[in-house]
Amino acid sequence: MIETINSPNDLKKVKLKDLTVIADQIRNIIIDVTSKNGGHLASSLGAIELTLALHYVFNTPKDKIVWDVGHQAYAHKIITGRREQFRTLRTYGGLSGFPKITESEYDTFNVGHASTAISAALGMTTAKDLLNTKEKVIAVIGDGALTSGITFEALNNSGELDKDLIVVLNDNKMSISKSLGAISTYLTKRLTGPTYNTLRREIERAIKGFPVLNEPALKLAKKIEESFKFFSPGLLFEEFGFKYFGPVDGENIEDLVTIFENVKNLRGPVFVHVLTKKGKGYKFAEENPSKFHGIGPFDVSTGQTLEKAKSPSYSSVFGNSIIDIMKDKPKVVAISAAMLIGTGLEKAKNLFPERVFDVGIAEQHAVTFAGGLAISGIKPIVAIYSTFLQRAYDQIIHDIALQKLNVVFAIDRAGVVGDDGETHQGIFDISYLNLVPNMIITAPKDARELDALLRFSVDNDFGPFSIRYPRGESVDFGEQFIDTIEFGKWQVLNDTESCDICIISYGNCVKYSMQSIPILQEKEINPFIVNARFIKPFDDKMFNEILNRFKNIIIMEENTYIGSLGQNLITYAYTHYENHKSKIEHIALPDAFLEQGESEFLRKKYSLSCDNLINKVYTLLGR
Amino acid sequence: MIETINSPNDLKKVKLKDLTVIADQIRNIIIDVTSKNGGHLASSLGAIELTLALHYVFNTPKDKIVWDVGHQAYAHKIITGRREQFRTLRTYGGLSGFPKITESEYDTFNVGHASTAISAALGMTTAKDLLNTKEKVIAVIGDGALTSGITFEALNNSGELDKDLIVVLNDNKMSISKSLGAISTYLTKRLTGPTYNTLRREIERAIKGFPVLNEPALKLAKKIEESFKFFSPGLLFEEFGFKYFGPVDGENIEDLVTIFENVKNLRGPVFVHVLTKKGKGYKFAEENPSKFHGIGPFDVSTGQTLEKAKSPSYSSVFGNSIIDIMKDKPKVVAISAAMLIGTGLEKAKNLFPERVFDVGIAEQHAVTFAGGLAISGIKPIVAIYSTFLQRAYDQIIHDIALQKLNVVFAIDRAGVVGDDGETHQGIFDISYLNLVPNMIITAPKDARELDALLRFSVDNDFGPFSIRYPRGESVDFGEQFIDTIEFGKWQVLNDTESCDICIISYGNCVKYSMQSIPILQEKEINPFIVNARFIKPFDDKMFNEILNRFKNIIIMEENTYIGSLGQNLITYAYTHYENHKSKIEHIALPDAFLEQGESEFLRKKYSLSCDNLINKVYTLLGR
Repeated sequence: MIETINSPNDLKKVKLKDLTVIADQIRNIIIDVTSKNGGHLASSLGAIELTLALHYVFNTPKDKIVWDVGHQAYAHKIITGRREQFRTLRTYGGLSGFPKITESEYDTFNVGHASTAISAALGMTTAKDLLNTKEKVIAVIGDGALTSGITFEALNNSGELDKDLIVVLNDNKMSISKSLGAISTYLTKRLTGPTYNTLRREIERAIKGFPVLNEPALKLAKKIEESFKFFSPGLLFEEFGFKYFGPVDGENIEDLVTIFENVKNLRGPVFVHVLTKKGKGYKFAEENPSKFHGIGPFDVSTGQTLEKAKSPSYSSVFGNSIIDIMKDKPKVVAISAAMLIGTGLEKAKNLFPERVFDVGIAEQHAVTFAGGLAISGIKPIVAIYSTFLQRAYDQIIHDIALQKLNVVFAIDRAGVVGDDGETHQGIFDISYLNLVPNMIITAPKDARELDALLRFSVDNDFGPFSIRYPRGESVDFGEQFIDTIEFGKWQVLNDTESCDICIISYGNCVKYSMQSIPILQEKEINPFIVNARFIKPFDDKMFNEILNRFKNIIIMEENTYIGSLGQNLITYAYTHYENHKSKIEHIALPDAFLEQGESEFLRKKYSLSCDNLINKVYTLLGR
Repeated sequence: MIETINSPNDLKKVKLKDLTVIADQIRNIIIDVTSKNGGHLASSLGAIELTLALHYVFNTPKDKIVWDVGHQAYAHKIITGRREQFRTLRTYGGLSGFPKITESEYDTFNVGHASTAISAALGMTTAKDLLNTKEKVIAVIGDGALTSGITFEALNNSGELDKDLIVVLNDNKMSISKSLGAISTYLTKRLTGPTYNTLRREIERAIKGFPVLNEPALKLAKKIEESFKFFSPGLLFEEFGFKYFGPVDGENIEDLVTIFENVKNLRGPVFVHVLTKKGKGYKFAEENPSKFHGIGPFDVSTGQTLEKAKSPSYSSVFGNSIIDIMKDKPKVVAISAAMLIGTGLEKAKNLFPERVFDVGIAEQHAVTFAGGLAISGIKPIVAIYSTFLQRAYDQIIHDIALQKLNVVFAIDRAGVVGDDGETHQGIFDISYLNLVPNMIITAPKDARELDALLRFSVDNDFGPFSIRYPRGESVDFGEQFIDTIEFGKWQVLNDTESCDICIISYGNCVKYSMQSIPILQEKEINPFIVNARFIKPFDDKMFNEILNRFKNIIIMEENTYIGSLGQNLITYAYTHYENHKSKIEHIALPDAFLEQGESEFLRKKYSLSCDNLINKVYTLLGR
């Protein structure tokens, strides 16, 4: 049947009871494609019935569905004319893993980072009133979004504006690791306690049972009646001015269709609480939804991931280092914003449950919380992905850097991240941290140096200390390339008297510098290779020596060129050595959002490769 | 008596009933000093009794009070050994208008931006447990903080961690303009509705009045009893896992002391709701608390502000332009984050209540809400101060720039802001926006150009469009210096054939460029003056011409030098014109937080002045 569904209009022709068949067919497509391409499997499996019910009831694309984060929107893509293209999911030039306005008119807002949907949807429904159009606007959020500040800002403003807006809570009882904090407890408690309806019935029966209803008892009965709403499981949302409906069984399409039909013409903000199951319909994902949250290719029949990494990921290197450090140093703690598994902190959490904090999708709080710890003599390490750290930018500046607090920022997924695309490419962090006074920025060239920088950062009190490292497999140059870290000092990796060109790079790009040595040496070019592991402050002494010694310098970095180390060095060279004769070539990422695709492919496309580096050397040396 | 209070220990020797006398004396000092120095009067007047009660009960500085925002902390400063210094409030080298760790051991965390206190305090109390110390930690927040996402992230995490933490809500029933959103309605409703205690008494009486209590009625009575907490006015906070106490009369020191004594040894998170009155004890401030929120010098006897501005502030120029634009263009709307008055939007709000949105201290939501409006065809103008916009950095990148949405950012308080000091100096925005792909950055040289740029921004669809302008009085160069704005084009303000040096500046610095003309001409130096009103994209065509024509170029800008226009231009010159002969001198702010002080004084100190510009010209030309 799925072959006949090329748009939500086709879906509407299907009998309600047959939707479950379509759901199963979609389930198979999603499992099949993600088993090959990787992707966000568990969330998307859990939201299939919800997706079908929404498109069945609402008049999309006129009515607008805003998917929060969007990694649960695979079924949405499949039934909105992208079933065939779905095979290209998350590949270069293929379908995005997230809704994307340039991809389909059914995708109403670009998403990727959590908790933006209510704000965007409130904007859309406000626009509807201003433009006097009639469409419905529906925001679908996960329970993880309820740990995030912007969600509450949006709920609060929704209650005040009182616009027509349907918020669907897709409650699978876990955010990416698990639901966190008091709100999570609240939802669980509400769901297991006596419901509104049960309690109401009991009270009514009891009151009827009273032999005589005296005057105060009558008044009381009325007052209790008025107060019934306080027993609603959605009390919290009602306090924000929403009409609450639910909880609804999110595995039952008929129930879902009924409730959406009931609420779709209500005025004002409406909150529909749907209970779903992450990984639904695929045994291995149901049993281990965290593993199948975002997963690489796997064997459908066994649930085993197919790609065996050759070397540990930087995240796991980080996770292991942290454990060793925490064993030695009781004042070191770690903080994650709902990414214990992703950042490699899960093992540390199990070993040191009181010293590893998962605060929810709450990067702002994570950073200021770290500030409160640091000012009290604790050494917090805040592990957040590069693009998610943008959420805490003011806190980094205002709460940490201004007070020069000793907070370590472990910035994972920095640089090109690959398949997740534009919203997740960590290509801005060097620049947005570079401009922050007191901020120290470092990047390890390999796994050993990540460990060394972590130890260095917690052993010293230099103020805010950032360590940025890439997604995926780590590099290891071997013990011979490890020396003692010194504050603000670069490392020379290759130097002979015959060196005739200098290559400065840091982090992932050091790999290309090192790869270039034998190739260049064959052409009798001997490069002076610098590992600029301190990006801020940079090693001005060594850079001065380089300017004096080399006529040709290449700076290579995996970050936008604007505000980068390269710009800092070029400006420094120009203003301090206006008569120097060095040519400086800067290889960095363009001023653009980078599309999805395999990481090494993208790096190569954007001139981050050994080949390109060698070509630049040839050009500079006139070969 | 106040003369005898040099620390909270002195305060503890005073009889409880005499604290009101001290409160009145503090009130007089605050009114006196702010009438001369300006400052945050209304909030500080409202919090005097609360401050005395806290220091009376708690053992500060061992016990830690974290003041949110901190503009209510004047009484705190006066009784913690800074009474004499208080005369220097907000002056260069004097006391900060906010708590500051370098100023006193009683100041536990640097504050300035709203809503950080609970996060920081939770960090401190968590550190207490890790270090096994025994101090109490108290966060004092205003009701405005409850509109801010990070507050909810912190409440949520507090409920989960279940650490000892006292949050005091200083509820003066208005944030900076007014309390906003559903939470505000919630608090008001709760306070005016039947209270927990009244209702409880009534129910108890009614149940006792029942002639026969049958079995179901008995069960019901128990169930109602258990559910009593749902009637608490602090229900919302109890849902987050706090024990709620209040509301308490914040004008009554004895009541405050009693409640703090009662809660100080409770375990787990505690929420104390205190009702205060903004401006209390000073008639004019009570009557017009918004005017006296942050105020310049005023006449104590009349409440009239003393300094008459010579020209309208940029905020009021913005406010008037917006009104004209909104009259013509029904699709233009404006958004403020709790700063309707500060940004100049109050008049527009009165004229167009449905098209001007005050979303609360919720910059993140403000920006994504604008995204939802923009994608639906509305033209939103988001007016936020430079440093507060840092709160919405991820939303700017991820929700606006990535989709190239037509959102206008009106960035007020950009550059040096003066007396508010480090936390409010808007010296980073050029850099943090420069690195964002698709972002357009402009700065008007004067009031007329602010109007022109605003019109240009709403008349076109270039994507995200920033206009940054300074705090305070606007400049007006006159009609002869207004031309037609062209996308990405600079304006030449002085050009003759004899020009021998080029000065490039934008925004406030254009003033110094223009002032330099007659002085330099006297020395027979004729500067070519460029108004670089487009910072991104910059006018590469004109810059190429400048590089070809001038041996000496000065770039002057009021922003940190890292990631600035100057760095972009120097890198461009260097990489595109490596053999060009121009010397480029870059005058910009250092990589540092700027202290408080009078704005022109600070600018001069950090080399932003006509004198310094002229000296650089002399140096470059060898005079």
